[in-house]
Amino acid sequence: MAADVLDATFAALADPTRRAILARLMEGEATVTELAAPFAMSQPGISKHLRVLERAGLISRGRDAQRRPRRLEAGPLKDAMDWLANYRSYWEESYQRLDDLLGELESGGPNAVERESP
Amino acid sequence: MAADVLDATFAALADPTRRAILARLMEGEATVTELAAPFAMSQPGISKHLRVLERAGLISRGRDAQRRPRRLEAGPLKDAMDWLANYRSYWEESYQRLDDLLGELESGGPNAVERESP
Repeated sequence: MAADVLDATFAALADPTRRAILARLMEGEATVTELAAPFAMSQPGISKHLRVLERAGLISRGRDAQRRPRRLEAGPLKDAMDWLANYRSYWEESYQRLDDLLGELESGGPNAVERESP
Repeated sequence: MAADVLDATFAALADPTRRAILARLMEGEATVTELAAPFAMSQPGISKHLRVLERAGLISRGRDAQRRPRRLEAGPLKDAMDWLANYRSYWEESYQRLDDLLGELESGGPNAVERESP
C-alpha cells in the first residue's frame, strides 16, 4: 500500500469531529445538513472536514444529485487496521510478560513480594 | 478513551518516517543514532519525529542513561486498532454484498451480464 494513502487516512482520523462523522455514517448515508446537526460548528466548518475525509477516500457521495448524501467508504479503515495488526504480536507479548510476572508474584516465585498481614 | 489520546496517536502515525521508526523498534530497543541510520535525515530531524512519538506515548526511553535507547510502547496502537475494529462489521458487509453480486453475475441471476463470445 502506498505510504501517502496511509498518511492521508491516519491524518484524517486525527480529529474527533471527523471520527464522529464516520461513526454517524456507519449508520447510513447522511446529507451535510444532517452531519452538521450534532456539532456546534458552521456548515463551512463541517464541509472542510468532509473534504479531508473525501480526499482520504473515507467517504463518497451518493447518487442523489440534489441531496448529495455522504456515504462511508471503509476500505482505507481496513488498510489502516491491517497496518496496526502487524503490532498485535508485540502488544500480546507485552501483556503475556505482565501476566507471567503477576502470576509469579502471586505464586511466590523468585519475584514474589511478601503480602502484608492484616 | 480520551479523544485527544486518539488524536495524538493517529497524528503520530500519519507520517512514513514515524511509522518506519515504530517498525524498527518492534525488533527491539534502538538509540537515536541507530534509528537515524536508515533515513536521509539529520539527527535533529529524527529527534523531532521521536518527540512526536514520545508525546503520543508510542515510545519510551530505556534504562541505560547514556545510550537512552528508545522502546516501542504498543498500548496506543492497540487503542487505535480497537477504534478501527468498530468498523469491521461495516467493511465485512460491504465485501459480502460485492461477493453476492459477483456470485449472482456468474450464476446468471437477475443481474447477470452476457459473456462475450470469443
